[in-house]
Amino acid sequence: MANLGIGLVGTGYMGKCHALAWNAVASVFGDVERPQLVGLAEIDADLARRKAAELGFSSSTGNWRGLLADPAIDVISITTPNQFHAEMAIAALEAGKHVWCEKPMATTRADAERMLAAQRASGRVAAMGYNYIQNPLIRHMAALIRDGAIGAVTHIRVEMDEDYMADPAEPFYWKSEASSGYGALDDFAVHPLSLLSVLTGLPTEVMAAMAKPYANRPAHDGGRRDVENHDIANVLLAFEGGVSGVLMANRSAWGRKGRIFIQIYGSDGSILYDQERMNEFQLYDRAGNPANHGFRTVLTSGRHPPYGRFIPAPGHGLGFNDLKIIECRELMAAISGETAHIVDFETGFAIEKAVHAMAESHNRRQWMPVDR
Amino acid sequence: MANLGIGLVGTGYMGKCHALAWNAVASVFGDVERPQLVGLAEIDADLARRKAAELGFSSSTGNWRGLLADPAIDVISITTPNQFHAEMAIAALEAGKHVWCEKPMATTRADAERMLAAQRASGRVAAMGYNYIQNPLIRHMAALIRDGAIGAVTHIRVEMDEDYMADPAEPFYWKSEASSGYGALDDFAVHPLSLLSVLTGLPTEVMAAMAKPYANRPAHDGGRRDVENHDIANVLLAFEGGVSGVLMANRSAWGRKGRIFIQIYGSDGSILYDQERMNEFQLYDRAGNPANHGFRTVLTSGRHPPYGRFIPAPGHGLGFNDLKIIECRELMAAISGETAHIVDFETGFAIEKAVHAMAESHNRRQWMPVDR
Amino acid sequence: MANLGIGLVGTGYMGKCHALAWNAVASVFGDVERPQLVGLAEIDADLARRKAAELGFSSSTGNWRGLLADPAIDVISITTPNQFHAEMAIAALEAGKHVWCEKPMATTRADAERMLAAQRASGRVAAMGYNYIQNPLIRHMAALIRDGAIGAVTHIRVEMDEDYMADPAEPFYWKSEASSGYGALDDFAVHPLSLLSVLTGLPTEVMAAMAKPYANRPAHDGGRRDVENHDIANVLLAFEGGVSGVLMANRSAWGRKGRIFIQIYGSDGSILYDQERMNEFQLYDRAGNPANHGFRTVLTSGRHPPYGRFIPAPGHGLGFNDLKIIECRELMAAISGETAHIVDFETGFAIEKAVHAMAESHNRRQWMPVDR
Amino acid sequence: MANLGIGLVGTGYMGKCHALAWNAVASVFGDVERPQLVGLAEIDADLARRKAAELGFSSSTGNWRGLLADPAIDVISITTPNQFHAEMAIAALEAGKHVWCEKPMATTRADAERMLAAQRASGRVAAMGYNYIQNPLIRHMAALIRDGAIGAVTHIRVEMDEDYMADPAEPFYWKSEASSGYGALDDFAVHPLSLLSVLTGLPTEVMAAMAKPYANRPAHDGGRRDVENHDIANVLLAFEGGVSGVLMANRSAWGRKGRIFIQIYGSDGSILYDQERMNEFQLYDRAGNPANHGFRTVLTSGRHPPYGRFIPAPGHGLGFNDLKIIECRELMAAISGETAHIVDFETGFAIEKAVHAMAESHNRRQWMPVDR
Repeated sequence: MANLGIGLVGTGYMGKCHALAWNAVASVFGDVERPQLVGLAEIDADLARRKAAELGFSSSTGNWRGLLADPAIDVISITTPNQFHAEMAIAALEAGKHVWCEKPMATTRADAERMLAAQRASGRVAAMGYNYIQNPLIRHMAALIRDGAIGAVTHIRVEMDEDYMADPAEPFYWKSEASSGYGALDDFAVHPLSLLSVLTGLPTEVMAAMAKPYANRPAHDGGRRDVENHDIANVLLAFEGGVSGVLMANRSAWGRKGRIFIQIYGSDGSILYDQERMNEFQLYDRAGNPANHGFRTVLTSGRHPPYGRFIPAPGHGLGFNDLKIIECRELMAAISGETAHIVDFETGFAIEKAVHAMAESHNRRQWMPVDR
Repeated sequence: MANLGIGLVGTGYMGKCHALAWNAVASVFGDVERPQLVGLAEIDADLARRKAAELGFSSSTGNWRGLLADPAIDVISITTPNQFHAEMAIAALEAGKHVWCEKPMATTRADAERMLAAQRASGRVAAMGYNYIQNPLIRHMAALIRDGAIGAVTHIRVEMDEDYMADPAEPFYWKSEASSGYGALDDFAVHPLSLLSVLTGLPTEVMAAMAKPYANRPAHDGGRRDVENHDIANVLLAFEGGVSGVLMANRSAWGRKGRIFIQIYGSDGSILYDQERMNEFQLYDRAGNPANHGFRTVLTSGRHPPYGRFIPAPGHGLGFNDLKIIECRELMAAISGETAHIVDFETGFAIEKAVHAMAESHNRRQWMPVDR
Repeated sequence: MANLGIGLVGTGYMGKCHALAWNAVASVFGDVERPQLVGLAEIDADLARRKAAELGFSSSTGNWRGLLADPAIDVISITTPNQFHAEMAIAALEAGKHVWCEKPMATTRADAERMLAAQRASGRVAAMGYNYIQNPLIRHMAALIRDGAIGAVTHIRVEMDEDYMADPAEPFYWKSEASSGYGALDDFAVHPLSLLSVLTGLPTEVMAAMAKPYANRPAHDGGRRDVENHDIANVLLAFEGGVSGVLMANRSAWGRKGRIFIQIYGSDGSILYDQERMNEFQLYDRAGNPANHGFRTVLTSGRHPPYGRFIPAPGHGLGFNDLKIIECRELMAAISGETAHIVDFETGFAIEKAVHAMAESHNRRQWMPVDR
Repeated sequence: MANLGIGLVGTGYMGKCHALAWNAVASVFGDVERPQLVGLAEIDADLARRKAAELGFSSSTGNWRGLLADPAIDVISITTPNQFHAEMAIAALEAGKHVWCEKPMATTRADAERMLAAQRASGRVAAMGYNYIQNPLIRHMAALIRDGAIGAVTHIRVEMDEDYMADPAEPFYWKSEASSGYGALDDFAVHPLSLLSVLTGLPTEVMAAMAKPYANRPAHDGGRRDVENHDIANVLLAFEGGVSGVLMANRSAWGRKGRIFIQIYGSDGSILYDQERMNEFQLYDRAGNPANHGFRTVLTSGRHPPYGRFIPAPGHGLGFNDLKIIECRELMAAISGETAHIVDFETGFAIEKAVHAMAESHNRRQWMPVDR
């Protein structure tokens, strides 16, 4: 494959993260051509120019549609606020570009569905930015489960907790508006769902209850304003074959910073993982002398590809940004027609459907099937 | 208070545990008279005689009713299989004895209700054997919550997991019979409920889903037999004031031995506790420099009464059996008319009602109020 | 063996601990006669009387020699301050009693040697109160090492840290007097040495450096008084066969409460243990797929005798006082002529010699052999 | 500062790591010009050409001296095997280039001294690649100590353990040759020393004992060959002001992958850190209610600059390679004449002197001063 030409829309948290990945991927992996960082789009031309210099892009524009017209660009990274994903992704796919779009797909289910349709029609690759699945240990855990290391899965628990909404004195801002979504559910429960999509498959039925730890918050005008969505979501899950599970998400959990705690129990063992200690996982198996049974804390190493591409020595640790580099490499593999480990729009849409079913379940106070 | 006279019915796991407590309580605490270990009842006179010698009781009998007639006995420890609790406790209360009864109260809600009625009619003390609440750290956590150390409680999670039913090759035995109860729910979810009764109060509404990790097990006759109850229970909880929670119980969770993991989130901090590391808890509070915020691992010490009665040095560790000694001391306080930290039949019955509401919720697949 | 008659001298921290053990041992183990708690001695007759009632002893005396004369007494528990150990133990042995003496043996090496001589001359059993070795996990670790589970031992590290001397504002008291001993070395480094005596054997050569974190402390008279011994001891160790090690002891280590952290490395694996989490240890072995290698956290269970005597369920936890009950049972075994797992005066004296060699090494600033 | 021109010598483990840092530094920090990746040197022209393409360098050469002659190059990254450091660094400095040299400085003390002299004569910046000090948490810990958060430092322990030499069946290779150095001491004990240089200062006196866990190893010719250096080093440390410490290094410690465990005790608190969990540290302080005292596990966040340059969200985790990017930024600051957080040749040489004093101490079996 000749050098891929890259366009980037957006230079916030995730835009920078994409840019770092595009800059690093060839050096880290050593098995692909260095991408050409062709064009960067931002909300105004000035900012775009500054960011292009900073992030290593050759040209810049204040109008993202300019990137679509550039024949030197093969892939568009979309890292703008959620409400723009649908329009941009669809336009990019229609322009024949591959798409790397940050999560979630869109702010409505209908938009997400249109995005999937556009991808199908285009024949292009479209990958979602669910980078947690790129952790070499998550891949390894998926392989262990698939290969029967813990037997048949019997029970699944996933928790995702942070504390950026934990302070009740924090003034009302857009994250508490209904228009921003359901709250914890789409703000970040999609991440554990992306992990389940890789590890065990998504649930087929859900029973959710959402909660508001704080009914209202200080308004900027001095009064108080009612909180419109839910910082907490608790969901009973049913999986194929009668496997049960629970998903919990809480963005007002003091002390949790980036916790995604996964417990997967099987008929022969168990697996535990905590994103806050992303360079280790725990495995319990029942082989050998029971007097020595226990959860083993396994550190990432070259035994868990592609860790070795980053560091030859075991246990030295990857970081959050490194996962994006792996995601980038997987996207490049997909574009080359190779089997790749990505959340494509197909799976991305399945995740959205699970989220919407949960919200519906909460509203009706009853179990809901997840549409397939 | 003059020496209490003690009768013990049953000498299994919990009978021995009661006996150890009665033997040790005065030496540990140094502020009560040594109880007189008057009489011990077992299923046959021979076993009773042997056990009396072993456990330090002066007399023995093959008929538990003999203890009721003995005027030297003030308190009866009831540690027999669950189906005998109601008959024995009621008879003991009617005979004017105080009662220390192992959990759960009874095998049916109606029996539990009769036990409570008998206690009320008797004016005697009746305490349940929920010894986990006796951990000095649990008391300390309860005080922290009550005193606002983590602000208003916003969210609660409790997990109880063991693995004694985890092996699918284990033959069918009575624990899988419907007649033994719902499964994980009454087999041990009552323990986390006892902890909630102390820490945060019990839930007012529940939505449960139970599951069978293994549909059937090897039968003793060589075929296979269907499992009749549920090794897994997952329950959404609603508490007063809109506080949400989740309770999970799994007795087939490979690798878990005595895990009761509690997470309590509040508006100013969080508290974590794991029964498998019963000599420590974790506290997060938002005071001071945020650059140094984190969960603090606090070891038990003389700062957490009555730890100091056992060991003057901090961090040296109590064991499971020590909790029973504390429970014993609390029971003695209650008998003396002092305020005591016990699960009485009132609270014991509230726990049973929560369990039955959960089972009902599972059957109907809908939210159920917990009867008050 | 008929009922043993027990005498107890001292009722402080350790006296109470012995009493609890003598009260509980028969009930816990169920395979020995209940000891007769015959006589208790304290510094005055009144205190003795009160404590006898509290701790379950039949008679009491203000003169410890009274116990020696009592033919109903077979064993004497000696739990008085260290300077009395030698006199009492020797007198008890000469009176034909077995002896259970708290650590350390004596305040001088000469006294310890006389105690050993008295024991040899008496033909009686004399056990030291090194209860940490009684942890079922320590026994299990010793068996693992002996059976080659980690191959040949290659390196050993032991740390013992507490913080009762950590506060520089704490006034000078007897623990800082030279007459009380070397400081951390004999105050508690003897404990890790007792563990090494069981796990790997004692060192043959030592190179020590002691340190004073605080040169002086507030005196009770208002001025300041120089600290006369060392709160910190750091020791390089050499073992038979060229195995190297390090022992560190610090009684001014803020945050440490009862830490004894042991690391034992071998040619095929490693073992870790921390006394602050005394119900678990960690094992690393190199068997199986390297992608799953890691330290396993093993919880105590019935697989580690005699845990099952206390609690049938795994992972429920022993406490510090339970270790004394096991020690008591082992002492009874020794008295019955069975093989027992105790630190006898032979080993106790070996530990003392190691400590004295360390102090000598510090003074001379050179390696010293440990006298054998 | 205009764009820096970069030359890179060597493209192994550390060469790649430098290249990744040069590629990323401007994008991550956003406050410096993107460096120009001018030239890359490797052992042969072909490899150099391939690596230049992979790592983003504009030109390449099979002769490293070519980089010195290139006026477009301002800084040379030296990442070749240790024996080449001195020659290359001195030549680069003499050619007026700034130098970024991987650790250790050189294979002899004399060479290291010549490197320092060359740096002094040149007036150029020379930084060593001790990237562990770049962890935002290490900086934060240093600030805490400096600002008195734990009072006066009283005791220091550092352990560095890995297991790449743990397998006795591993054949003899160059790491076991005397010519490669002392073994664990210079192979990696220099890392903990770099951390001490930042946190507490280096020791002034040392007493070391090195050990060989395996006397010999399988030779490639079929026989066995004697191991010539020491996989284990244990060192007593004395610091200014009477502070004591211990340093332990073991490259045959099964199960340890990248452990650098630091314990720093002070008169008001303690700090713990483990490199295997590089995104957290532990802090104990004695403020507030003692019933809630404990070690706090603090996760890295934007409160610990420059973490926020990488990720806005707290607790999401940096990796090993990210530390090199920070080191790169610090080097650029130093070149701009700003205060920078680097190990310069001055400090680098101080670390070397400490290592040589330790080796000397081992040989003489006596305490040695560290030359200043």
